[in-house]
Amino acid sequence: MSRDEKETTRLNARNGGLSVRDSGELHLVRGFRTAALSVGLKSDPVKPDAALLYCDAPKGAAAAGVFTRNRVVAAPVTLSRRHLRKSGGRARAIFVNAGNANACTGVRGAADARETARLMAAELGCSPEEVLVCSTGIIGRPLPMDKIARGVVGTAASVRRCACLGSFAKAILTTDLVEKRASVSFELGGRPVRLVGVCKGSGMIAPNTATMLAFLATDAAGRPAVLQAALRSVADETFNCLTVDGDTSTNDAVLLLASGAAGHRSLAKTSGRDYEAFRAALFAVCDRLAARIAADGEGAAHFVTVLVRGPKTDAQARRIARTIAESPLVKTALAGNDPNWGRIVAAAGRAGIPFAPAKASLAVCGRELWRGGMPVDFNEQAVSREMKKGAVEIVFSVGNGPGRARFYTCDFTHGYITINADYHT
Amino acid sequence: MSRDEKETTRLNARNGGLSVRDSGELHLVRGFRTAALSVGLKSDPVKPDAALLYCDAPKGAAAAGVFTRNRVVAAPVTLSRRHLRKSGGRARAIFVNAGNANACTGVRGAADARETARLMAAELGCSPEEVLVCSTGIIGRPLPMDKIARGVVGTAASVRRCACLGSFAKAILTTDLVEKRASVSFELGGRPVRLVGVCKGSGMIAPNTATMLAFLATDAAGRPAVLQAALRSVADETFNCLTVDGDTSTNDAVLLLASGAAGHRSLAKTSGRDYEAFRAALFAVCDRLAARIAADGEGAAHFVTVLVRGPKTDAQARRIARTIAESPLVKTALAGNDPNWGRIVAAAGRAGIPFAPAKASLAVCGRELWRGGMPVDFNEQAVSREMKKGAVEIVFSVGNGPGRARFYTCDFTHGYITINADYHT
Repeated sequence: MSRDEKETTRLNARNGGLSVRDSGELHLVRGFRTAALSVGLKSDPVKPDAALLYCDAPKGAAAAGVFTRNRVVAAPVTLSRRHLRKSGGRARAIFVNAGNANACTGVRGAADARETARLMAAELGCSPEEVLVCSTGIIGRPLPMDKIARGVVGTAASVRRCACLGSFAKAILTTDLVEKRASVSFELGGRPVRLVGVCKGSGMIAPNTATMLAFLATDAAGRPAVLQAALRSVADETFNCLTVDGDTSTNDAVLLLASGAAGHRSLAKTSGRDYEAFRAALFAVCDRLAARIAADGEGAAHFVTVLVRGPKTDAQARRIARTIAESPLVKTALAGNDPNWGRIVAAAGRAGIPFAPAKASLAVCGRELWRGGMPVDFNEQAVSREMKKGAVEIVFSVGNGPGRARFYTCDFTHGYITINADYHT
Repeated sequence: MSRDEKETTRLNARNGGLSVRDSGELHLVRGFRTAALSVGLKSDPVKPDAALLYCDAPKGAAAAGVFTRNRVVAAPVTLSRRHLRKSGGRARAIFVNAGNANACTGVRGAADARETARLMAAELGCSPEEVLVCSTGIIGRPLPMDKIARGVVGTAASVRRCACLGSFAKAILTTDLVEKRASVSFELGGRPVRLVGVCKGSGMIAPNTATMLAFLATDAAGRPAVLQAALRSVADETFNCLTVDGDTSTNDAVLLLASGAAGHRSLAKTSGRDYEAFRAALFAVCDRLAARIAADGEGAAHFVTVLVRGPKTDAQARRIARTIAESPLVKTALAGNDPNWGRIVAAAGRAGIPFAPAKASLAVCGRELWRGGMPVDFNEQAVSREMKKGAVEIVFSVGNGPGRARFYTCDFTHGYITINADYHT
């Protein structure tokens, strides 16, 4: 078994047996079509830089979204939030552009986001409120609306021809090194259902900010409020338990569209067997996408999972996990394949969550390094060799409480500094 | 005027006109003596690695201390806290060792810290509770008590000969590149008073954690509770507004001893002209020491001051300032002399403090880069040239509220990664 396959098996085990696919060609689900455009927003004008996800179900899709919590919010985020609210959680299309984030662009930026939705709605023959828009790229510069307007023409025709995710996933990338896709198949009410996702993130958009975008499409049927609740709770455990460098973008967005084409009875409440099955599938896909973002973190040489167990609440566990995952000292030790228990323990200790070191313990790559407030006698070379393989699991336990959390992150390398400091002279 | 002199003038202006000295030989204040020892704890056995600050006033010194808030606390911190409590804030001596932090050393570590204080008390002819101990260096290894015991012998004789700070400041260093000292002269009740300080910090103690230690001595007279209140409030605005990489050590300590030898009426309350004068002097010295730590941050090429103005409270301002100062994206942009307003604004926006971008503004090195939610037209090359000089001031304003904060930090360079990741193979 290759390392990738082992990792996939391990992740599947955690996903309650759901088999997540994330390589090869992933086809879309019933009710959706895509188009990839070259609008001319990236430095290479031939590269695809915009994409459309379109729902051709008669009434469009039920829609849900979670967005950045940054106080400085990009125009497309504000607009998409408003459209979801006004439409009561219905959408016909998601239009994404890369190369320009339309953030910190003031009144003009807000008008440009509205105009983008209007142009796309006219092309598709729907109302502007049924179009959600996302942007990623450089900030502080106005969207070149002439290029957007030219690019939109003909999208309706091309969208009818394509139902695969490949070109969509490629068009939304910025400095990501790899495309990130995942899909699962499951059943609801005896009917086969599929859920697919694509995302981009962890690449920095020179010279400004980074953005995480994820798009999820399913042929499941559900009330928008139910989809929203599922997406909110899943995002909190996946995309919100992910850090590359602790920075939240002005443009982050996770959108879910459900076409209902699978034909089962629509999910009407946030409990019961069908809801749980849907939430598990959503978790499986989001979890895989989040892991791919951490693994593709800027300059990353290690994919790192931080598990925290034993405080009173999940929120406390998450705070400890996040403090470990964001610690520059921990991340540089990981870069050096150094089983540096002292830095991990010191990071956990400053998270602001009470625990007794005498009852705590730490394991890295399955080996215990520290217990009861003191280091245990371990083979440093052997643990370092394990770390060198590239996937590192840190397990920090603080006692017997029910709190649990898991964070994904990556290491801090010379590559990170090069990407983020050296491009400017 | 050299850059250092300009910086000194600027800092003095902020210190209410108090002139802070931080170079040349700084003599101690009346009532104190020092000794530097070579105990054999550092890899170079000839290097001084322990030091004693001794108060020869008849009743010893009034004492105050603030310590790490990390949940994982080193044995000397626990012991010094207890001694201050038991003695009611009196101390005769501070004994510091570098090279071994006596942290994560369990029951044995606690006994070793007690034994260190007992040995030193026997040598000096005082009670163990009058000795405060501090350690910095490698963690998880027991203190070599045989070396400590041998080193302590004869300290009482050598401490009588030295009243200068130089050797003390040198002995407590670990991987710091420069010694850090500061002093001010002022008046209390018409009598001349001096306050001096030395510190170490921002160097990583391979292979584990970093520690910030600061020692302050004055011939002022004050009740321990008054000194403690002044030290707490000053430390919150100086050492607690300082970040190199966001990591808090298990051993951090700031200790203040006051001999009372200046002969003025003892400070008895936390208000009034004399208290304010004392607090201002304490602030001036701690502020300078904190700035020196940031400037000597691991791999640092830039000394950075983050000023935040305009939220409702100082605590809110501090949270925004800290988020900017700790952002890896901001710190790598600083390393690249890149006036990257987007990263600073995005960091401020994720601090969790409400503000309206439309009322906010950002200046770097005195030039406005961003206002009202949008970038202003500025000369990028000119700002970059200013940044290259090495001292960068970031001013982020969020409105007209009374909240103010200042944070010191440094940039994130290849040097930081080299120091913290590359030493391990």
